[in-house]
Amino acid sequence: MPARRIRGLTDRSNGEVAVEPMLSVPVIAVDANGADLGPAEVAAGANIAAAQGVRVLLFGPAAELGDAGPGIEVIDAPLSIAKEANPAAAARANPESSIVRAAGAVAAGDADALVSAGATGAALAAALFNIKRDRGILRPALAAQVPVPGAPVTLVDVGANTEVRAEHLVQFAFMGAALAQIVHGVENPRVALLSVGEEETRGSPLTIDVHARLTAMTGLNFVGNIEGHALVEGRADVVVTDGFTGNVALKVMEGVSDKMIALLRETAVSSRRAKAGGLLMRPALQEFRDEISPEIAGGAYLLGLRKIGVVGHGRFTSRGFAHAILLAARGVTGDITGRTHEALERAGALRKPAGAAVSETGSTVSAK
Amino acid sequence: MPARRIRGLTDRSNGEVAVEPMLSVPVIAVDANGADLGPAEVAAGANIAAAQGVRVLLFGPAAELGDAGPGIEVIDAPLSIAKEANPAAAARANPESSIVRAAGAVAAGDADALVSAGATGAALAAALFNIKRDRGILRPALAAQVPVPGAPVTLVDVGANTEVRAEHLVQFAFMGAALAQIVHGVENPRVALLSVGEEETRGSPLTIDVHARLTAMTGLNFVGNIEGHALVEGRADVVVTDGFTGNVALKVMEGVSDKMIALLRETAVSSRRAKAGGLLMRPALQEFRDEISPEIAGGAYLLGLRKIGVVGHGRFTSRGFAHAILLAARGVTGDITGRTHEALERAGALRKPAGAAVSETGSTVSAK
Repeated sequence: MPARRIRGLTDRSNGEVAVEPMLSVPVIAVDANGADLGPAEVAAGANIAAAQGVRVLLFGPAAELGDAGPGIEVIDAPLSIAKEANPAAAARANPESSIVRAAGAVAAGDADALVSAGATGAALAAALFNIKRDRGILRPALAAQVPVPGAPVTLVDVGANTEVRAEHLVQFAFMGAALAQIVHGVENPRVALLSVGEEETRGSPLTIDVHARLTAMTGLNFVGNIEGHALVEGRADVVVTDGFTGNVALKVMEGVSDKMIALLRETAVSSRRAKAGGLLMRPALQEFRDEISPEIAGGAYLLGLRKIGVVGHGRFTSRGFAHAILLAARGVTGDITGRTHEALERAGALRKPAGAAVSETGSTVSAK
Repeated sequence: MPARRIRGLTDRSNGEVAVEPMLSVPVIAVDANGADLGPAEVAAGANIAAAQGVRVLLFGPAAELGDAGPGIEVIDAPLSIAKEANPAAAARANPESSIVRAAGAVAAGDADALVSAGATGAALAAALFNIKRDRGILRPALAAQVPVPGAPVTLVDVGANTEVRAEHLVQFAFMGAALAQIVHGVENPRVALLSVGEEETRGSPLTIDVHARLTAMTGLNFVGNIEGHALVEGRADVVVTDGFTGNVALKVMEGVSDKMIALLRETAVSSRRAKAGGLLMRPALQEFRDEISPEIAGGAYLLGLRKIGVVGHGRFTSRGFAHAILLAARGVTGDITGRTHEALERAGALRKPAGAAVSETGSTVSAK
């Protein structure tokens, strides 16, 4: 399912639909609410992405979004549920909210992917209710690209599922591999399982089970267990874990990284000598900080739905949101959903309808 | 149960036992095997600790341990099971190994606490089989002191239990609080629960249950949930989690910290200007590295047994091992085991014998 025929801005003005030239232009539905710097920052990011050939449907408070550039259609949806304590309930109760309308545009086929500016819970709920799980997928998952210089790694799940079964983690492995390959350009990504020991016999009963299953899978470059410290050592391109552990691991990484930067800043003013050194090192340190900035990773990917979603970090600037939109577009043109499905099917890891089970829509599905 | 009468080196030589002056001198059984730098490094650490008034029974290859200084008794136990893949089986099969003999000395009352130089699994197994769980304790736990400058935090469990129930985490909270107070000198330690959201309704079914139980506990300064990044932000003195998540979190912290130091080193030679700055900053950076070194934390504490245990980091130098021994001694003189038991009893969080259940020793215990 690559990008299909879409209705662009120019087409809508005269009621006609231009077909051929637009076949490969992905349309991204973007929720501008939820960013720390406000909706205008998201709009600025959308403009950067649109300048690179992506079309954007921008949902948010039109009054705050400024002038939409070429390739951007603003849909006035001022209601935000980004700060709601119970995102699932808020998504159900507020069909007019920007995130639900953006997800609805994707579900209706008006857009190919969803990008949210910050609230993961609301985006997850809105996407799950509207875009829905892909055929044969047991659970959606959140994948984050961790910007380790020289050794970027995709961590999945980082928070969609606090409790999982072995078959969920198996599917996450394939979803993460497809993301690494299609969106991040890694050939034959090395997939590892996060555990508390490298040996196949070490870990929880769950990880020991999953290790055995992943070892037996075809079409997956499984490289075994890795421990927490190896997450930043470049020993795997994709690391699979449950959403509780993955969320904690990701946030510990962010926290330690921020803390070290803060401590270094203190160190750099701790003496006259250190201060002089800090000044000289400043350009190199700034480059280093840019390298580990989450902005270049584009946020968290929502996988396992019928269309891809990306949730930016609330503290992104326009650059980060542009990146999120462009990476979502790359997932669309690379057909991440279709290719994940095919890989899971080949490996026999799709949800199996038992005999002639009744599917969600009530029709009879035969096992194959 | 503070340090009791012990037989020291000088006493054994003439068969007599000096009583009064030694009442408060803790005796620590130390396994010298398992350190990256070899048994001699552990012996050097034991000498440092002994010079500060601790007595040490040093188990390891006598030929490699050098001359024992005052306060140290060397027991020749060359067999090491530190590198065994299955530590529990190895501990059972090798009663003559240094770690099992050291744990045995603690169990027999010849020493007050156990310190191991590196292999956590072997130490855990040897301690569990020999020293055994304390009365009313469901599971032993490993606690690590994370050396965050200005905001040290005790993380428990960091690997003893990959699967836990709510009542285990409740006990871990009290064990960690006693450790922070007695060994690390924190008054009324703030105890937090590691989760994927701060709200009491966020997290896994397990953490939601534990949050409610900890809120209801008396004698515990429970401050609610914290997320991964807050581990290094000084918002709690003790953070409670299962051994799988805790192990991953601790190793991610170590990995990110090491990686940042390595990247900074690269940054500091990335240009002539940066190189000059790096030279000027070097003393301040060295001080900073010392501050975050795991050596000052002394290793992982083995809690919930009848006596305390400490497992040093395999890569410690003598300084780290000395610290581990001295902190174990502080746990003894502060009666961490007895005070944990009392706190759990007051809170009603000890294992409850149902009615007139039969205890482990076969005697009848009444519920109270």
